[in-house]
Amino acid sequence: MNQPAPTSDPTSTPAGETLAALEQLRRQIDRLDEQIVELLSRRHAVVQQVLALKKAAGLPIYHPAREEDLISQRRAQARQVGLDPDHVEELYRCIVRQSRVRQTVHAARSGVRPGAKVLIVGGRGAMGQYFGHWFSQAGYQVRVLDKDDWLHAAELCAGIDLALVSVPIHCTTAVIQKLGPFLPADCVLADLTSIKQAPLEAMLAAHKGPVLGLHPLFGPSTSTMDQQVIVATPGRQPEACQWLVDQLTAWGNIVLSIDAQEHDAMMDVVQALRHFATFAFGRFLWQRQVNLPRTLEFSSPIYRLELGMVGRLFAQDPELYADIIMASTHRRLLVQEFVRSVAEAAQLVDQGDTQAFCQQFRQVAAWFGPFCEQAMRESSFLIDKLVERF
Amino acid sequence: MNQPAPTSDPTSTPAGETLAALEQLRRQIDRLDEQIVELLSRRHAVVQQVLALKKAAGLPIYHPAREEDLISQRRAQARQVGLDPDHVEELYRCIVRQSRVRQTVHAARSGVRPGAKVLIVGGRGAMGQYFGHWFSQAGYQVRVLDKDDWLHAAELCAGIDLALVSVPIHCTTAVIQKLGPFLPADCVLADLTSIKQAPLEAMLAAHKGPVLGLHPLFGPSTSTMDQQVIVATPGRQPEACQWLVDQLTAWGNIVLSIDAQEHDAMMDVVQALRHFATFAFGRFLWQRQVNLPRTLEFSSPIYRLELGMVGRLFAQDPELYADIIMASTHRRLLVQEFVRSVAEAAQLVDQGDTQAFCQQFRQVAAWFGPFCEQAMRESSFLIDKLVERF
Repeated sequence: MNQPAPTSDPTSTPAGETLAALEQLRRQIDRLDEQIVELLSRRHAVVQQVLALKKAAGLPIYHPAREEDLISQRRAQARQVGLDPDHVEELYRCIVRQSRVRQTVHAARSGVRPGAKVLIVGGRGAMGQYFGHWFSQAGYQVRVLDKDDWLHAAELCAGIDLALVSVPIHCTTAVIQKLGPFLPADCVLADLTSIKQAPLEAMLAAHKGPVLGLHPLFGPSTSTMDQQVIVATPGRQPEACQWLVDQLTAWGNIVLSIDAQEHDAMMDVVQALRHFATFAFGRFLWQRQVNLPRTLEFSSPIYRLELGMVGRLFAQDPELYADIIMASTHRRLLVQEFVRSVAEAAQLVDQGDTQAFCQQFRQVAAWFGPFCEQAMRESSFLIDKLVERF
Repeated sequence: MNQPAPTSDPTSTPAGETLAALEQLRRQIDRLDEQIVELLSRRHAVVQQVLALKKAAGLPIYHPAREEDLISQRRAQARQVGLDPDHVEELYRCIVRQSRVRQTVHAARSGVRPGAKVLIVGGRGAMGQYFGHWFSQAGYQVRVLDKDDWLHAAELCAGIDLALVSVPIHCTTAVIQKLGPFLPADCVLADLTSIKQAPLEAMLAAHKGPVLGLHPLFGPSTSTMDQQVIVATPGRQPEACQWLVDQLTAWGNIVLSIDAQEHDAMMDVVQALRHFATFAFGRFLWQRQVNLPRTLEFSSPIYRLELGMVGRLFAQDPELYADIIMASTHRRLLVQEFVRSVAEAAQLVDQGDTQAFCQQFRQVAAWFGPFCEQAMRESSFLIDKLVERF
């Protein structure tokens, strides 16, 4: 592109001249490759520093958001310099995969502290059973305290190393208060509630020992904990809680620390509002008695995927969703705010205001930024998988 | 490292310092990556020269010995600079594979009626270009009539076998009326509009020959037509339209016939309402200025998938969505009805009426029937795919 071919007269000695020119170009490629590998080596050194830093701080190695960011940036640059973005992405998936340290998760099924006594409060619920199973498998002594077992609470709490509260949101605080007096002083008190501020406060008040708030971002139907995120909100004596974090990490979980207040504010949107919107959409389809099988017949894989997100919600426990959506006054207000916003959007449609609609659409798109394109790629990838399989 | 932690009280969140140091290292990685991609682009340019030279001299593109040579050199260098030679080899196999010219003539799918004349009305739009490309590849003579070409309409329509209308919904009827008088009597008139009643009526009125309504349930970004659904609403002389259906089928499409009225009623929900709901949700996230990257960091793959459905919408053309959502009075009324229904659902939340919420939830779930469980399995399958890849 930059250099003209050095052949003066390609017709005279075609093979000889061409080969010399090729040789020269190859030497150029070799020099470029040398520089690329040199940069890869410098990149590797920086990645090592990142890993060391993360390890020291107990941060998770794998960071999906950062990876997608990085790849989006490289794709954008690829486009600018005239490379195929898909090729550069493939290459970077390869680089990133290599730089990710795979902590031999599979070997670590065995417990971090086998023999330790774990009490699952609410252990007969779906999530309680799920965690009970994992602790048992890893060699822990697992006990269960469910709503009918309070008469034996003292006995069940004797000598335990961990009390893990896994009960519905609306009774979490009450259960913690009731549990407190039975706990050994050095026992770790932790919960699995999907809100964190109120339970954390209740735990700190009810127990003077180590306290840790946990919110697993997955349900009891998840077959593997590998790469599943658990959010941790530290309470008291983090060093005494470390074995629990290590155990979760050993199972493959990514444990991310965050302040309880920020967690709750985020989950208001990520969980409560999203679930409400999905519930309201499914409810409307039912009200209208839409012929679902017929729509599935006459529609695209992307519709199937979207309707699947709705159907998925209704395959689950209504109480759980009621509990999440109505967990706080703030959430209830957010839902009302959402309804007002949807009504505003509907006004644009009612007035047939294409211009305002498009203007807002573009603003939202700009605000979403590179995620839109990323989402497009990811969902296209998934649609391919869906078509392949179904 | 040099930067102060952005937290006001770094002792309470010791992660602050670490995060600043991480950020700095990440910027270093970004700069290195930028240089790497820059070098890849220079490499690509030289490879193009090599290919041009080889092509001119009739030399084979693929040169196994040269590839092995190149990879051996990179392995040797990797060892010197302390990188894993296997990793560097994997990377270079990837680079070399990509730089090899892939002649992308996937068997070209020869046409059912090669040589036939196809006029794409709106052929400079994304969807028009897409179909124009497929027809060209299959050996058809493709002509384009776009908005500035009406002076030459008579000439462009002379002797055509198919006029395929691919224009925005809001001007489809007008374009068909304008086109009618130019069409040869035995030419097939078809459209690609996502509503079908009005365009079909317009086509039947404007043209006395064969008429077929089509609605491809996919966009112009779809790389393959394989297993993609195209809905067909028959108009007139189906036997004369059969070659077009056969051509679509030959490309891998699944062509499903349905009555135009039923199609439109279904698409009111499947497209218009669903797109509106997604738009309204994305718009609310923007209004609230939700910290998207942060929520992606602290959430589950299923959230990523759901947010991806929202992001995907905003990666596309606003006019197209405005056109779909506001296509008919009926759709506008449906959106209003939806808003009222969402407000009703929000009342349950506002009143904290868990019982009514759960009761309705169960009713909707029962109505969804086996689809819920199916959706659960499908989405779990997809989440696994998502986790595997990203």
